[in-house]
Amino acid sequence: MTEPKLAVNSASNTMTQSYRATTYQLLEEHTNMTLIAKIINISLIMLIITNVIATIFESESSYHQQYLVEFTVFELISLTIFCIEYGLRVWCCVEAKKYQNLSPSKARIKYIRSGVALIDLITILPFILALFFNIDLRSLRLIRVLRLLKLTHYFKGFNIFISVIAKELKSITAAMLVMVFIITIAASLMHIIEGRVQPETFGSILKSLWWSVVTMTTVGYGDVVPVTPIGKLIATIIMLIGVGLVALPAGMLAARFGEELRERKEDLDSKIKQALADGYIGQEEYQELVELADRLEIDPEDFQRTIAQFKRINNHEKCPHCGK
Amino acid sequence: MTEPKLAVNSASNTMTQSYRATTYQLLEEHTNMTLIAKIINISLIMLIITNVIATIFESESSYHQQYLVEFTVFELISLTIFCIEYGLRVWCCVEAKKYQNLSPSKARIKYIRSGVALIDLITILPFILALFFNIDLRSLRLIRVLRLLKLTHYFKGFNIFISVIAKELKSITAAMLVMVFIITIAASLMHIIEGRVQPETFGSILKSLWWSVVTMTTVGYGDVVPVTPIGKLIATIIMLIGVGLVALPAGMLAARFGEELRERKEDLDSKIKQALADGYIGQEEYQELVELADRLEIDPEDFQRTIAQFKRINNHEKCPHCGK
Amino acid sequence: MTEPKLAVNSASNTMTQSYRATTYQLLEEHTNMTLIAKIINISLIMLIITNVIATIFESESSYHQQYLVEFTVFELISLTIFCIEYGLRVWCCVEAKKYQNLSPSKARIKYIRSGVALIDLITILPFILALFFNIDLRSLRLIRVLRLLKLTHYFKGFNIFISVIAKELKSITAAMLVMVFIITIAASLMHIIEGRVQPETFGSILKSLWWSVVTMTTVGYGDVVPVTPIGKLIATIIMLIGVGLVALPAGMLAARFGEELRERKEDLDSKIKQALADGYIGQEEYQELVELADRLEIDPEDFQRTIAQFKRINNHEKCPHCGK
Amino acid sequence: MTEPKLAVNSASNTMTQSYRATTYQLLEEHTNMTLIAKIINISLIMLIITNVIATIFESESSYHQQYLVEFTVFELISLTIFCIEYGLRVWCCVEAKKYQNLSPSKARIKYIRSGVALIDLITILPFILALFFNIDLRSLRLIRVLRLLKLTHYFKGFNIFISVIAKELKSITAAMLVMVFIITIAASLMHIIEGRVQPETFGSILKSLWWSVVTMTTVGYGDVVPVTPIGKLIATIIMLIGVGLVALPAGMLAARFGEELRERKEDLDSKIKQALADGYIGQEEYQELVELADRLEIDPEDFQRTIAQFKRINNHEKCPHCGK
Repeated sequence: MTEPKLAVNSASNTMTQSYRATTYQLLEEHTNMTLIAKIINISLIMLIITNVIATIFESESSYHQQYLVEFTVFELISLTIFCIEYGLRVWCCVEAKKYQNLSPSKARIKYIRSGVALIDLITILPFILALFFNIDLRSLRLIRVLRLLKLTHYFKGFNIFISVIAKELKSITAAMLVMVFIITIAASLMHIIEGRVQPETFGSILKSLWWSVVTMTTVGYGDVVPVTPIGKLIATIIMLIGVGLVALPAGMLAARFGEELRERKEDLDSKIKQALADGYIGQEEYQELVELADRLEIDPEDFQRTIAQFKRINNHEKCPHCGK
Repeated sequence: MTEPKLAVNSASNTMTQSYRATTYQLLEEHTNMTLIAKIINISLIMLIITNVIATIFESESSYHQQYLVEFTVFELISLTIFCIEYGLRVWCCVEAKKYQNLSPSKARIKYIRSGVALIDLITILPFILALFFNIDLRSLRLIRVLRLLKLTHYFKGFNIFISVIAKELKSITAAMLVMVFIITIAASLMHIIEGRVQPETFGSILKSLWWSVVTMTTVGYGDVVPVTPIGKLIATIIMLIGVGLVALPAGMLAARFGEELRERKEDLDSKIKQALADGYIGQEEYQELVELADRLEIDPEDFQRTIAQFKRINNHEKCPHCGK
Repeated sequence: MTEPKLAVNSASNTMTQSYRATTYQLLEEHTNMTLIAKIINISLIMLIITNVIATIFESESSYHQQYLVEFTVFELISLTIFCIEYGLRVWCCVEAKKYQNLSPSKARIKYIRSGVALIDLITILPFILALFFNIDLRSLRLIRVLRLLKLTHYFKGFNIFISVIAKELKSITAAMLVMVFIITIAASLMHIIEGRVQPETFGSILKSLWWSVVTMTTVGYGDVVPVTPIGKLIATIIMLIGVGLVALPAGMLAARFGEELRERKEDLDSKIKQALADGYIGQEEYQELVELADRLEIDPEDFQRTIAQFKRINNHEKCPHCGK
Repeated sequence: MTEPKLAVNSASNTMTQSYRATTYQLLEEHTNMTLIAKIINISLIMLIITNVIATIFESESSYHQQYLVEFTVFELISLTIFCIEYGLRVWCCVEAKKYQNLSPSKARIKYIRSGVALIDLITILPFILALFFNIDLRSLRLIRVLRLLKLTHYFKGFNIFISVIAKELKSITAAMLVMVFIITIAASLMHIIEGRVQPETFGSILKSLWWSVVTMTTVGYGDVVPVTPIGKLIATIIMLIGVGLVALPAGMLAARFGEELRERKEDLDSKIKQALADGYIGQEEYQELVELADRLEIDPEDFQRTIAQFKRINNHEKCPHCGK
């Protein structure tokens, strides 16, 4: 996602200390945050969470009527803050390293079209429109819940998550397809077997599908249950298969996840080794490594330990040709 | 499954551009597809899916009566297309690399007996027979659902899936056997304990088995539940064990799956290393590596990255002191 | 479990072809089985399975009365066969490589006290006693189900299974303890919250435990469900934690399982490397490696591939000192 | 947690054999325990477990009234023992290697503020207070259940457990957040779809959340179930997603767990290699390695095997041609 270029003039930028740079640092930089940046970010996170909780409680008609004014005021305040936040983010996005080589307007257009910015926009736009047009606010409730997605600004852990899912998409699709297939076959079988005895719930493949999904996912509500001996036998086989299959995609994701962790570490290791080829790590090289570690989401502590380890190894390894 | 021989005359084949080769490319080649091949393949996938959905809805008697004509017409059209597809696949299979050294008739017989071709045949044959003989179409519904299996033509992810299951079959059988054993023991125990209180549901080991399976797979319908204190105690122990055991096969598959991914990568790495032994990768070597990567289902992007990495290592693996 | 010594006189043993050796080969050797050995072993497996199925159906009183004679005859025949099998196994166990250095009587005593032999004995002894003493055969039903354990003779996959569980016992105990702790805490909390509203099901911690276990294992019968808002909130938190925890032991077992597979392969690799140190693998060395691969339950095909790979590497690697 | 310094005067300490050192050995040292230490520790473990079991049974009012005296006496005895235990642990903690460089009073303050000591204190303090003040003992029941946490003294397996969770916290938070988000969205959707048909259970997002959590965690009580076709369709999609997501955190933990095991082994390996650099392992080096293995919670048997293996490699790692 991030492709930082060589940050040649980043030093001069921080020197000028323009308002825009400060805003950018406060809102978007999540490493080495100042106290005020921490307060702002935590406040925004709290606001998002309380917002969603408020929406959940507002949907309860008893609370809705009793605290109508409070809910409305809170919604208006949050909406205003979110609008200001969105404006500031669009304004200061120019400072981002990855937009460094673009003109401000181009950088902003690119930012507005990025995932996080689109989420921000979607969660405020309908409410702004609702102020001017006559839109039923109740139907907007679902969109208000989507504000939870704004938290993606703050959790870097998502990146590794998404990259793992993307890499494993093929296998997961395969596993899912197998599952859909078994669910359909199970539904067809149960329709044939239980259809005559329980026409209400197994009367068609369509109806049987509900039982099939509820069983294969091991949710097992118990609202639909086979009653004939053969039905129970088939259900037994389906459950035993289902239980194994259903946990498979998660297991495969977890395996790839472990693989991803290892690969990232190896990637960093090879870069450290390269930097150490001439015997020591220069200031510039070190900066690059730190950035790489940050991009690969490697724990800073782990990173320091790895470097120390490599330095030790480097001192003890000698070339077999010249003995140094 | 695929054992590509050295493709000596594949170039001349593509030169002649016979209809058969074109058909083969359109239907069977899934790398570097032309636009028309993409359209054909996606249409076929859509047809399979809509077919199964139609079967599911048709089983609902209300829909069946209302849209009888539509369903029949759609079935006839799909059947015709699937027949033509099957014919074309059998006709053009001769072009496949793996059948290169066989005579056309032998290649076709071999293809017809392969898994994917058999699935294709099974899902059309009964309906062709039903046109001539008086077979109740309703009983063929299950076979029509099997058309979902035709999707195996399009998902390569299945290969790694099947190879992993095959390698882990022994351990999974062991885990399954342990599970079946615990299910049986649990059923026997519960029959002894709960049998007198709930003769309807725990009256025999056979009856108790239903509870046992539903519980061990964590489906838990709730239609059968122990009521005596000792029954609940035994059930508790069974649940705690069951929950661990039931997730085990999937976990083992996932572990082997991770192992498989690593092994495949190592396999490719060692081949790249070998190809780089003389300092550079020739055109022919490169072609072989690409084919290997494709066969091992390694992401093309990952493949390029690996090669670049190896080239870099190869260039730098010299002693910094003596230059060797 | 198996500690094969150097099989110096195994060749002469197979030469003499005593009845005892033949019996041993037929019953206990599962590699390179003759056709007759295969038939005998498969028959015994089928007998065990049909035996357990018969027990399950016999417990159903309607079948029990209708087929009383058939069930009794089948039980008597099976019991006779199992007794003969047990006798033969004890008689011929002397031939086992691991008992090679013991006197026949000592070998037999050691065998009788081994796990598999004890299972065999337990599943026949009570029935032999029942012929002489007046034991209610119904109470022996559970023991008859235990005959399923006799299948351990035939599935080597169990070994790796048990060794993995043994190695991971500490972590699994920790995970289990955490689970028991959370279950107890959850039960205590729910008793305090739901106790007054539903005294029947949450009236004491003891009663609440049932709900707690059923929920944490995600079985969820639905016979006991929280109804108060706070109860539901606590239940929500418990479910979210529980779901993660409950899958953990299986996940850890699976991870160790993957580790075990890798270690075994590395173990074999290092032995092959050692055997190849002098440039080639002698007849004796090869035999040892095959035995090791068999003991480590490594796929013969994988084993051959590994050897071929090492030979290739061996040919291309040269000593940095003398250039050979 | 433990940072053992070079134990220079540990020998003289064991020579003096002060009571304090003996107490420390009996209570806190879990390697090479004497028989009496084993008895004391097992007694304490049994006391903790019986204590919790007693609390669970006491909450059942019928048992409570019948065995009131027994329960009270048992509680008083256990409380006394736990108080003495706590006192002794605080008194003798000075002997711990990690507090070696601190003055006794500072060491004790540090110990009292450590996790295990705080747990000990929490589980006795309220009951001591209850002797002087008029606190309802019934409300203390939950705290008495917390005594189960005292078992952390005895299970070292927890350490690796906690360190794994700590390292994976970021990814688990991400997975949890995704889950919370999907649960909320699912609840909102179902409220819109099923709200009108089942106002009792889907009447608000708040009410729908209960169904959403019960379904996503695959608990599936069945007390709330969608009835409309669209509701069932949405529920199907939610279940299929949920089932994959819910197993993910456990899978990721398991993957990291496997990684942790491997890293620990590699860490030890590199230290052994370093110690063997001069050809043999000195007494002092060996002691350090043993301590490291203990700290990394590596099986002593595995440790011995690894050392033996490294020694063998070390001796043989010579070129077969020139002998270097």
